[in-house]
Amino acid sequence: MIEAVQDNPILVEVTRGALVESCHRGAVAIVDADGRVLLAAGDIQRPVYPRSAVKALQAIPLIESGAAEAFGLGQAEFAIACASHSGEEVHIATVRALLAKAGLDESLLACGAHWPMSERASRELTRNGKSPTAIHNNCSGKHAAMLVTAVQLGLVPRGYERPEHGVQEEIRRVISQICGVALERDEMGIDGCSVPTFALPLAALATGFARLACGRGLENKRAGAAQRLMRACFAAPHLVAGEGRFDTMVMRRLGDAAFLKGGAEGVHCAALPAPGIGIAIKVDDGTKRGAERVLYYLLARLIAGADQALAAELAGDIRNWHGDKVGTIRPAPALKAAVRALPRQAATPAAVQL
Amino acid sequence: MIEAVQDNPILVEVTRGALVESCHRGAVAIVDADGRVLLAAGDIQRPVYPRSAVKALQAIPLIESGAAEAFGLGQAEFAIACASHSGEEVHIATVRALLAKAGLDESLLACGAHWPMSERASRELTRNGKSPTAIHNNCSGKHAAMLVTAVQLGLVPRGYERPEHGVQEEIRRVISQICGVALERDEMGIDGCSVPTFALPLAALATGFARLACGRGLENKRAGAAQRLMRACFAAPHLVAGEGRFDTMVMRRLGDAAFLKGGAEGVHCAALPAPGIGIAIKVDDGTKRGAERVLYYLLARLIAGADQALAAELAGDIRNWHGDKVGTIRPAPALKAAVRALPRQAATPAAVQL
Repeated sequence: MIEAVQDNPILVEVTRGALVESCHRGAVAIVDADGRVLLAAGDIQRPVYPRSAVKALQAIPLIESGAAEAFGLGQAEFAIACASHSGEEVHIATVRALLAKAGLDESLLACGAHWPMSERASRELTRNGKSPTAIHNNCSGKHAAMLVTAVQLGLVPRGYERPEHGVQEEIRRVISQICGVALERDEMGIDGCSVPTFALPLAALATGFARLACGRGLENKRAGAAQRLMRACFAAPHLVAGEGRFDTMVMRRLGDAAFLKGGAEGVHCAALPAPGIGIAIKVDDGTKRGAERVLYYLLARLIAGADQALAAELAGDIRNWHGDKVGTIRPAPALKAAVRALPRQAATPAAVQL
Repeated sequence: MIEAVQDNPILVEVTRGALVESCHRGAVAIVDADGRVLLAAGDIQRPVYPRSAVKALQAIPLIESGAAEAFGLGQAEFAIACASHSGEEVHIATVRALLAKAGLDESLLACGAHWPMSERASRELTRNGKSPTAIHNNCSGKHAAMLVTAVQLGLVPRGYERPEHGVQEEIRRVISQICGVALERDEMGIDGCSVPTFALPLAALATGFARLACGRGLENKRAGAAQRLMRACFAAPHLVAGEGRFDTMVMRRLGDAAFLKGGAEGVHCAALPAPGIGIAIKVDDGTKRGAERVLYYLLARLIAGADQALAAELAGDIRNWHGDKVGTIRPAPALKAAVRALPRQAATPAAVQL
């Protein structure tokens, strides 16, 4: 058992009135494609489960297998393969299209059912007297992509979610290579959607995102596959998450300056193509609000103009049920200090400017 | 500004596969009615906002004002005044009854609207084409009690939620006396439901719950009011929270061995009448899962038979969407060590036995 992390710094403070009411500890790594660490806060060598943050890496075999050409897949299908979608109508339709192109149907999805993350979609389903099925699971696009990959590889689709299935073994091999660490079965967990999630150091996860960002350190074919996936997400940020969700809002505002992907339990990653750097965050307590605030602050410092572009929608206000501001979510001193120490090469205005 | 707490211990670990994936730090105080500290983990002198955990203390003026007799209030109305209810039909009906007895109606509620915490109630509302109003707010019972108290005290009800209103001033005076600390305006925040919440040390909060538990340290009239409120909650634990909620489930199982009340941002309190002790917990990161797990563990150790009574429903399993167990939420070594050091007087089987 890999034990709890003991001394990561406080990265985010939640204030109300006269108090810092709550706070979030964690670790952050900003790394380039050669694995050079540009920023480290907390323990970035401790293994963490990447959860849904690596969906874009899990989707690489979909392209490398040749499934994209064989089944005529387009950008929308690539984006939904990388998504933790909100279960809106457009998400469901895109997952169904992806499955249909390979002659598959949604009864094969092994992700389990939950209500759509979109409140509107969830209420619409209720009004129509329906209950959610596996297609509404935020991971159904990833699962559809795994099924399509299995078909293309000539494997039996059923059982595709199990660690020993060829698709999961291929994903493990690909992520190991991209991140530069061997993912091991004895550091495996089972994700909420039933597929394996393999622990890896935050620094390696950030390295993987730097390589996704710029292709450096990857063979040409893989770099091309990574580019296609990331470009598909830039073209349709709504498909990657959904209305009102952090990743969608930020990618809409920042154009192709940053690819973002959050995962469960406070994991969040980003790939910045222009400077060719990767960011990986793990908040110790597993809260999304902590991880999103760290990433917001890093993007605002790394990308010229991002602060103004994001501030209106993502100001970090805590509001009561009347909508009055009663507090804030803000970067803590340790995070500010780490960012001040960031070398200039990570964020030259010439390299990344909106 | 009271700054973030720096070095509270890890109280709870969240595991998945081979890793402690996440963890929750915090502080815990177990105190008797004389303010003697029986267990301290973390900084129990740092002020925290008690949020909804003190609803039973906020309800004391309802009884002390004479409103209970004047308007013929019963146990159900007392319980809903202390509740963070789920917005089920029975909760809504009880809040309406409380208001109606004093000739008030729900248009006066200043708590703001949110969807019922009960998923069933929330979906039912949607199916009926309705949207939530202030009556569905989990705090509407508390707000109704404040309105009724205002009427009984001869105050203008409108504006009852503001810090300078007589009802809020009376609540501040009462909680200051019960907890033995002066609550100050300059350590005030505004709660999600728009009423003031005053910061106080965790040790003082636990002292208040010890006095609520056994009446010691309170004048007779106040001790009687506290008893009436707590007994009303024991008689109707369903009204205090709702179906599937932690406080309701535990109080159902433990009879009158413990009164429990959770608040936002990881605050949780309990009053144990037989040994006359109070428990106050604040999880640094504000997560409910952390606070509930700490309290579960303390109750299982303090109340003979509680472990068996609670284990079936509250085992602390983490499950995927298929319902398979993939991890656990468990007490961390520091919490276990603190409990081992607890003096025997806090938990003699003779004093508290189911």
